[in-house]
Amino acid sequence: MTFSEELQKRKEDAEKVIYAFLPPEEGMVREVSKAMNYSVRLGGKRLRPMILNETYRMFGGRGKAAEPFMAAIEMIHSYSLVHDDLPAMDNDELRRGEPTTHKVYGEAMAILAGDGLLNLSFETALKAFELEPDNKNIPEALRVLFNKSGLYGMLGGQSVDVKNEKALTDPDIKELEFIYENKTSRLLEAPAMTGAILAGASKEDVEGLERMARALGLAFQIKDDILDVEGDEKVLGKPVGSDEKNGKVTSVTYYGLEGAKEKVKEYSEKAVKEAAALSCKSEFLIELIKYLVDRDR
Amino acid sequence: MTFSEELQKRKEDAEKVIYAFLPPEEGMVREVSKAMNYSVRLGGKRLRPMILNETYRMFGGRGKAAEPFMAAIEMIHSYSLVHDDLPAMDNDELRRGEPTTHKVYGEAMAILAGDGLLNLSFETALKAFELEPDNKNIPEALRVLFNKSGLYGMLGGQSVDVKNEKALTDPDIKELEFIYENKTSRLLEAPAMTGAILAGASKEDVEGLERMARALGLAFQIKDDILDVEGDEKVLGKPVGSDEKNGKVTSVTYYGLEGAKEKVKEYSEKAVKEAAALSCKSEFLIELIKYLVDRDR
Repeated sequence: MTFSEELQKRKEDAEKVIYAFLPPEEGMVREVSKAMNYSVRLGGKRLRPMILNETYRMFGGRGKAAEPFMAAIEMIHSYSLVHDDLPAMDNDELRRGEPTTHKVYGEAMAILAGDGLLNLSFETALKAFELEPDNKNIPEALRVLFNKSGLYGMLGGQSVDVKNEKALTDPDIKELEFIYENKTSRLLEAPAMTGAILAGASKEDVEGLERMARALGLAFQIKDDILDVEGDEKVLGKPVGSDEKNGKVTSVTYYGLEGAKEKVKEYSEKAVKEAAALSCKSEFLIELIKYLVDRDR
Repeated sequence: MTFSEELQKRKEDAEKVIYAFLPPEEGMVREVSKAMNYSVRLGGKRLRPMILNETYRMFGGRGKAAEPFMAAIEMIHSYSLVHDDLPAMDNDELRRGEPTTHKVYGEAMAILAGDGLLNLSFETALKAFELEPDNKNIPEALRVLFNKSGLYGMLGGQSVDVKNEKALTDPDIKELEFIYENKTSRLLEAPAMTGAILAGASKEDVEGLERMARALGLAFQIKDDILDVEGDEKVLGKPVGSDEKNGKVTSVTYYGLEGAKEKVKEYSEKAVKEAAALSCKSEFLIELIKYLVDRDR
């Protein structure tokens, strides 16, 4: 199996798990359930649940506790996109080539669908208590997951990003790093750490995974900025040059194109180094890091 | 101490607990933290944390686990109001005589503040694991709390309400009951049950509290509809007749003013009966039910 095939297989496996935790579209709450499911089913790489499952397995997890967490992290990711696309935020009409949730279900329903997914992510993760009653690490896994998605994680990053866009001032490099670390890295740290915590990994390994995912997130985000400059629209499936058009300050603004490429190399090497230093190895994880920074879309 | 004084004291006690779990307004996330805290500090009766604390105490709870849950339920209540007030939802500019969160901080920040409060409510409730490490009932309390706030609770009720308003069709009585039960009763059932669960109350008592809170919620909501028709603007602190002006279908539309008053009596008697049938009694709870249905604001 090539790595691409492996990735496709793992994506499908992750989707099976995620979809099993989505609500039925029925009864009085049919409309909002449909909007919630639409948002999750819009797709994506399913990177986060894939990473969570991998770190759970590589540290010896063999139970069912990882599954609700895999679904939960994807619900958190989806909710953040639904709210991010709203007219009051980025006002995006398309995501992955499909109309965004508020374009299909209206703004009020999109707000509620996002809220519903965030609430459901918590309800879903809590199911780990039933699925692995003897697993003593669930409270810590919950703590880490929702710390990384909240005020001192993704949401905090989002709030600085919004503030900058609204103020129409250029963020300084410190702010930009804060935004990238929080908006992108935190939601990779969360699954990397949570899977390992659920499997009972050591503090040292969990911290190593945190550093790995932080570096991967930065490499991934800077790569995104580069693709927006020199990517191929046909391959990417979205217009390039949108950052410049929107007057958005990105890593390319600071480092220049070549400097940004250097940064991607630096951070991805750091991520690989951290992955290689863990007490349990995963070829897949290292391949995944390389794939994500070499991608052309 | 009169009951009013008792209520005031308990409100202040609840606020001390809630405020202790709010984030400091500092660092990069200062702005969104301010918006979150503003929403929570806008006030209200603090009914839900008060009920949670009471059912925890009455069933013998003596530890600290109730405190993070008290703060969490109030954060959930606040987030729902912030999002409910948004332009795409009810578009309200004032709440309790003060400008709503989006009027002060802008729409994008209000969306994030609501999201941030919901996320923080999980993080806060999870602190019960640290505060009462030996309490085996925390997972069940978490499950109930976030079930009642989610798709099959408050949020579900909200979604039907929004759908009705947008469709500009009159909801039938079944839909209206669904909305009232979910938007109002569920967030009273949650604290009533959660406090008791944390204290280790029996299944029968927890179910009795659920029925009590369901009836109280319906009585409370119908009373609200009545006050909108015949309340005193000066006492209420808000204009009356707004439901009719907005063409909103309420319980008064269905039952008429006298019929609605009958319903309030019926549901409040039911709530008192359920409270009196619990294996542990609370005078305060019974007084509170009576107070809430006799209020003139």
